[in-house]
Amino acid sequence: MKPYIQVNCAMSADGKIAGDDRTQVTISSPEDKERVKRLRKDSDGILVGVGTVTADNPHLTVKGLGYDENPVRIVLDPRGRTPDSALVLDNRAPTVIVTLESCEKTWPDATVIRIGRETIDLEPLMDKLYAMGIKTLMVEGGGETISAFFKANLVNRYTVYVGNLLIGGKDAPTPADGKGWLAADGIKLTLNCFERLGDGVLLDYTVSR
Amino acid sequence: MKPYIQVNCAMSADGKIAGDDRTQVTISSPEDKERVKRLRKDSDGILVGVGTVTADNPHLTVKGLGYDENPVRIVLDPRGRTPDSALVLDNRAPTVIVTLESCEKTWPDATVIRIGRETIDLEPLMDKLYAMGIKTLMVEGGGETISAFFKANLVNRYTVYVGNLLIGGKDAPTPADGKGWLAADGIKLTLNCFERLGDGVLLDYTVSR
Repeated sequence: MKPYIQVNCAMSADGKIAGDDRTQVTISSPEDKERVKRLRKDSDGILVGVGTVTADNPHLTVKGLGYDENPVRIVLDPRGRTPDSALVLDNRAPTVIVTLESCEKTWPDATVIRIGRETIDLEPLMDKLYAMGIKTLMVEGGGETISAFFKANLVNRYTVYVGNLLIGGKDAPTPADGKGWLAADGIKLTLNCFERLGDGVLLDYTVSR
Repeated sequence: MKPYIQVNCAMSADGKIAGDDRTQVTISSPEDKERVKRLRKDSDGILVGVGTVTADNPHLTVKGLGYDENPVRIVLDPRGRTPDSALVLDNRAPTVIVTLESCEKTWPDATVIRIGRETIDLEPLMDKLYAMGIKTLMVEGGGETISAFFKANLVNRYTVYVGNLLIGGKDAPTPADGKGWLAADGIKLTLNCFERLGDGVLLDYTVSR
C-alpha cells in the first residue's frame, strides 16, 4: 500500500518556482498560503528534496500545531547533505531523512531510512512510509523531486498556484525538472477545478492513468 | 510610437512550451486554437524568433484570409538562418525578416530589416514596425524571444493557455527563457481574467509598469 500523494507548488506565470540562481521568490498570495497551511495540516507527511532544504531552509511545520499534531517531515537526501542546523530538524515535528544505502551519516533528531543504491527507490519507500502511518503525503518540491515522483507514476493529485509575476531564465527551476520527458508524450492531467486565490489562480488536477 | 504588444503562448501545467528536445507538443485545446486564430486575425503583425521557425516551421497565417488580410509575419533572425523553404516565406502573407546589421543574407519573398550590432535592438525595431503600419503585434515565441521582449519592457499584455499535461525536464523551453531574471524581482502582472477553454485554462494578464 502507498500513500495518497499530492504534489503542491507555486509557480510564476512563466512556469518558474524560484529565481535563476535558486533565490526564493514569494509567488503565493496570503490566501494561497492559508490553503497550503490547511493542506499540510490534513497531511500525514510532507516531503521535499534536500535541494529545497539547503536552498530555502524551510521548517515544514504548521504554526500552532504541537509535535505530534504536525505532519512528519521527510527529506530525500541521497548523500546525507542535510546540515544538523537545518530547521527541518527542529523539535516541532518528527523528521525522517531518506538516504542511499551507502550513506552513513546520522542525525540525532531524525529517523533515517536508507534505501536504493544509485537513486532512492521511491516505490518501496512509499510502501515503507505507508506502513509507518503516512496515508497521505504532500510533495512540496523542488523540481527534481517532483519530477521523480511523476516519473515513478506515484502522483494522485497536482495542485499548482500560478502567481502574478514573471521570473524568466532558462535555468530557473520549474515544477518538474529532471532529465528529459516525464513520460513519452507527457503525463495527462484532468482539470478538477480552478479558482482565484488572492491575486493569482489555483489549478487543481488529477493525474490520469 | 510602438505597437501594442501581446505575448501569447501555451504551456504545460509544469511551465513548458515544448519537449526537452524542442519537440512540438499539442498543448492548446481546439477552443484555444480558435481564440488564437481570432487573435491573429485582429493583429497587424505576428512575430517569432528564428528558433521557432527552424524547430516548428509554422506558416503563421490564418486559414481563409488572403495575402493582404493576413497579419504581417515577422521573424527575428540575427544571423539569417531562415531557410528559403520555410513556410513563413510562402505567398500567403507578407513577411519581414529582421537581422543584425552585419548579416548579408537576402530572401526573395521577404522584406529585410537590418538593425543592431550585437543583438537586434527591439526598441527602434518596434518604432520601425509601427511606422510600417503595425499598430498591434502578437509575439508568439519561443522562450528566448518572449524573454527579450519582457526584458526590454515592451509587453502590454500576456496571455498563456495552461494545457492539461506535464512535460518535465529542466532543459525544456518555457514561456520566458534567456539568461537570468527578466527584472530584478521579476515582472509584476495583473490578472485581468481567466477562463476554461476546452480542457485547460486561459490566464490573461496586463503587465504592470
